[in-house]
Amino acid sequence: MIEIERKFLVKSTAFKAEAFKQTRIVQGFLNTDKARTVRVRLKGEQGFITVKGPSSSDGLERFEWEKEITALEAEALFKICEEGVIDKTRYEVKAGKHTFEIDEFYGDNDGLIVAEVELETKEDQFIKPEWLGTEVTGEIKYYNSQLSKHPFKLWK
Amino acid sequence: MIEIERKFLVKSTAFKAEAFKQTRIVQGFLNTDKARTVRVRLKGEQGFITVKGPSSSDGLERFEWEKEITALEAEALFKICEEGVIDKTRYEVKAGKHTFEIDEFYGDNDGLIVAEVELETKEDQFIKPEWLGTEVTGEIKYYNSQLSKHPFKLWK
Repeated sequence: MIEIERKFLVKSTAFKAEAFKQTRIVQGFLNTDKARTVRVRLKGEQGFITVKGPSSSDGLERFEWEKEITALEAEALFKICEEGVIDKTRYEVKAGKHTFEIDEFYGDNDGLIVAEVELETKEDQFIKPEWLGTEVTGEIKYYNSQLSKHPFKLWK
Repeated sequence: MIEIERKFLVKSTAFKAEAFKQTRIVQGFLNTDKARTVRVRLKGEQGFITVKGPSSSDGLERFEWEKEITALEAEALFKICEEGVIDKTRYEVKAGKHTFEIDEFYGDNDGLIVAEVELETKEDQFIKPEWLGTEVTGEIKYYNSQLSKHPFKLWK
């Protein structure tokens, strides 16, 4: 299916007090090619394999396919993933009818916090919480597949 | 899991008369890196996503993980696969307690016929049918992931 998502930097950690859920996520990549990213994720006790296609020219839409797998399967697949594991906590915050997913990164991406909101249509309006910063939708360096190879600590 | 397989060229089409099953297989690749191949397969009405790790130094063993998906999911994933689809018919032939899987390729790999047998252990003995040719176990050019990029018709 095609997902429509907008992505923002986060200005403060005020979102933490508003979160209704937080989950540790560890993920590796079987392919970091932007045209066919293959991600293996461990999210709490659940495993997932996810395939993403190329982004649309405006960066808003991207084909995404996901299948749940066991945690043991995810662990086995991690062993053959590319170098550069992503480790983060995902906070979920409601804002009107939408849910923001805010990822606070650890390790080589320590210091980076990014929020994403999934929309029904490209024109869909949404509430912007006060902690929401600059929009970075479509900026490839913020893709997790790219952060695994070129982490935040090496930027500037 | 780790699979132990041996692969051979096929000298004649005599195997066709011995086959108890034949299935058309179409497959594409989300990654052709030998260290982390990701294959999407349509096998008759069934879909599969399969991940293979690097081969052992003797070429006999390889990590393999597979999940069944729907035919529709496979079709959607084909759209973002690398160029170079593999199209073949797989014949299955019993020989003693083992089953040979013989792939007759079409398209850019027309003329190539390869047989594989899965073993329990590296030392496992098996019957060699008269149509079985030269062993090519571990020869990377015969990997389907490589045939998709460097097809048989371009060899020599």
